[in-house]
Amino acid sequence: MDAFRRFTGLAESLLPTVPFVGPETQERAMGAAFRARLGANENGFGPAPSVIEAMREAAPLSWRYADPENHDLRAALGTHLCLSPGRIVVGERIDGLLGLVVRLVVTHDTPVVTSLGAYPTFNYHVAGFGGRLVTVPYRADREDLDALTEAVRREDAPLVYLANPDNPMGSWHRAEAIVEFANALPETTLLVLDEAYCEFAPADAVPAIDALADKPNVIRFRTFSKAYGLAGQRIGYGFGTTGTISRFDRVRNHFGVNRLGQVAALAALADELWLAHVKSSVSRSLERIAEIGRGNGLAPLPTATNFIALDCGDGARAKTILEELAKEGIFIRMPGPAPLNRCIRISAGPAAEIDILAETVPKVLAKLG
Amino acid sequence: MDAFRRFTGLAESLLPTVPFVGPETQERAMGAAFRARLGANENGFGPAPSVIEAMREAAPLSWRYADPENHDLRAALGTHLCLSPGRIVVGERIDGLLGLVVRLVVTHDTPVVTSLGAYPTFNYHVAGFGGRLVTVPYRADREDLDALTEAVRREDAPLVYLANPDNPMGSWHRAEAIVEFANALPETTLLVLDEAYCEFAPADAVPAIDALADKPNVIRFRTFSKAYGLAGQRIGYGFGTTGTISRFDRVRNHFGVNRLGQVAALAALADELWLAHVKSSVSRSLERIAEIGRGNGLAPLPTATNFIALDCGDGARAKTILEELAKEGIFIRMPGPAPLNRCIRISAGPAAEIDILAETVPKVLAKLG
Repeated sequence: MDAFRRFTGLAESLLPTVPFVGPETQERAMGAAFRARLGANENGFGPAPSVIEAMREAAPLSWRYADPENHDLRAALGTHLCLSPGRIVVGERIDGLLGLVVRLVVTHDTPVVTSLGAYPTFNYHVAGFGGRLVTVPYRADREDLDALTEAVRREDAPLVYLANPDNPMGSWHRAEAIVEFANALPETTLLVLDEAYCEFAPADAVPAIDALADKPNVIRFRTFSKAYGLAGQRIGYGFGTTGTISRFDRVRNHFGVNRLGQVAALAALADELWLAHVKSSVSRSLERIAEIGRGNGLAPLPTATNFIALDCGDGARAKTILEELAKEGIFIRMPGPAPLNRCIRISAGPAAEIDILAETVPKVLAKLG
Repeated sequence: MDAFRRFTGLAESLLPTVPFVGPETQERAMGAAFRARLGANENGFGPAPSVIEAMREAAPLSWRYADPENHDLRAALGTHLCLSPGRIVVGERIDGLLGLVVRLVVTHDTPVVTSLGAYPTFNYHVAGFGGRLVTVPYRADREDLDALTEAVRREDAPLVYLANPDNPMGSWHRAEAIVEFANALPETTLLVLDEAYCEFAPADAVPAIDALADKPNVIRFRTFSKAYGLAGQRIGYGFGTTGTISRFDRVRNHFGVNRLGQVAALAALADELWLAHVKSSVSRSLERIAEIGRGNGLAPLPTATNFIALDCGDGARAKTILEELAKEGIFIRMPGPAPLNRCIRISAGPAAEIDILAETVPKVLAKLG
């Protein structure tokens, strides 16, 4: 093997891993483009026209480095969240921020608690820094708050991950339950609360900002990838106490956020009408996908996100349905572990793509018998 | 302090550090925008019109995640470099790739060799992963290859950094000297060869691709930030042997590169005419800055980059000149350690900004007496 021979023991122990295979990889393998791109919980309703315009206008200035302080965006987020900008960190999507928080907390064999089947990219980072994942099964398709608390205490874990609403199941807990969970954690355990989908959730599923804002052991992460339709621009942010947030300045790539992403995020935050349009479009789209599910014997699960899980009965059948849909040009994904893997996960999308889904699901099911 | 109390010992030992203060931070402090932005070695001649057009066209698809394999860009770079795509990694600028390579090699107290006054962001990463920097002084304003080799051997260092052409001095070594340096290194030392400015360098200062391509202990990094005018889009790449390059897949943020950045880089690579235009514009601009220096008793140093160092005599005088130019609305930078700090560093830029420089330098020097 023609590799340098003195990488760290940790680096040599890691397997080459890809948390998610991109649809482009599948398209190259198939030799054809997907007709419906409904697998990555992207927002096919797109960024706002005002955002596209702002990006187009700013494109000629792409020769400039972005402001490493993300000053204007943090100021706008501060207004949005009623938090001082010093309590906000802007990063390279939640993925990038998760990597940094893991790096700040995890060393060799550090126990880290998450749910079995929750966000793989978090797990990838934990493995990448030598941590030891401790997983807790879902209960009734929701992350199990009591079991997470119990695992944290048993392992004396310094880090626990919780997504609310949850990905991949779309389920959620009420705000009070999340706050109670956070309050029950030891002060020596940092809660990473991933709220990537919070803009789609019912109001009573999202804790008020001030409910957790003064807890040094809570960081909440949000993103412009989902509701704001900017997955390609990779802008996420986190907020917490000034002291906890300040630690990111010791390890983050200060010039890491791209300039057009900053411009786009600022414009997106200002366009509340478009956000409302997206939310109602997503809601209509999900209702159609649910109907397609019900009409074909695939029971839809409740969702507080921009995607929906359809129950296919068991893991083998779900996998076959996913593969057959891919052959028909429809990109979707599904959870890994049982019993979550009895479901397929379909993202909301434009009507034309849902039409293709509506037409294809019965065909595929008929073929499978 | 309202910070979580269980960050790693390493995280707690780090000082909050910013490798570079952005010009925007200075502008906010001054309450005024710079009239000439000549400090960050950006390319004020901008990305090609064809690149801007490609970005504008792609903006509406920013809701899509970028291809995590960077397939098309690696394929194009493969053609460009005559290397198979498996030998190329695309990342979030050289900064991001430097962070990854440091992470792959450095653990607690690992000795890492670089030159005293070379790229601070590399040093930031080394500190951030707990490494121990071993620095070697420049010799005659060039990185001292013999002293670097000697330090590597003395310390048994697994990692050494070399920029050719050099930043901040603009100096360079001939290709043969670089190849000889690489060949003299132990196989257990990884050479990071930062070629951010190579497109501006004389042909005989850049080793042929195949001169180092089969050495598992060499990675060469290049970027779209400089000659291609895309600093804001943060796209860099590295190349080496398949085995060495494959290690990045174990730790990189697979969806880390932004989609418009991929689009822009592909378009930039295809527009050779614009690159030629930029190179001649930079060359003319540097000649004017050199003249301004000579006309004002600030001797210009030879350069193989898009910036030029002007010798102000001593560090105190250079610092005063830099500060006075900033007050006049001109953003430049200067090296940190002596004796490099006798110089100010000025980036090539559009004629209008060089006019401002030409007018302001004599004023500032007259004021200083």
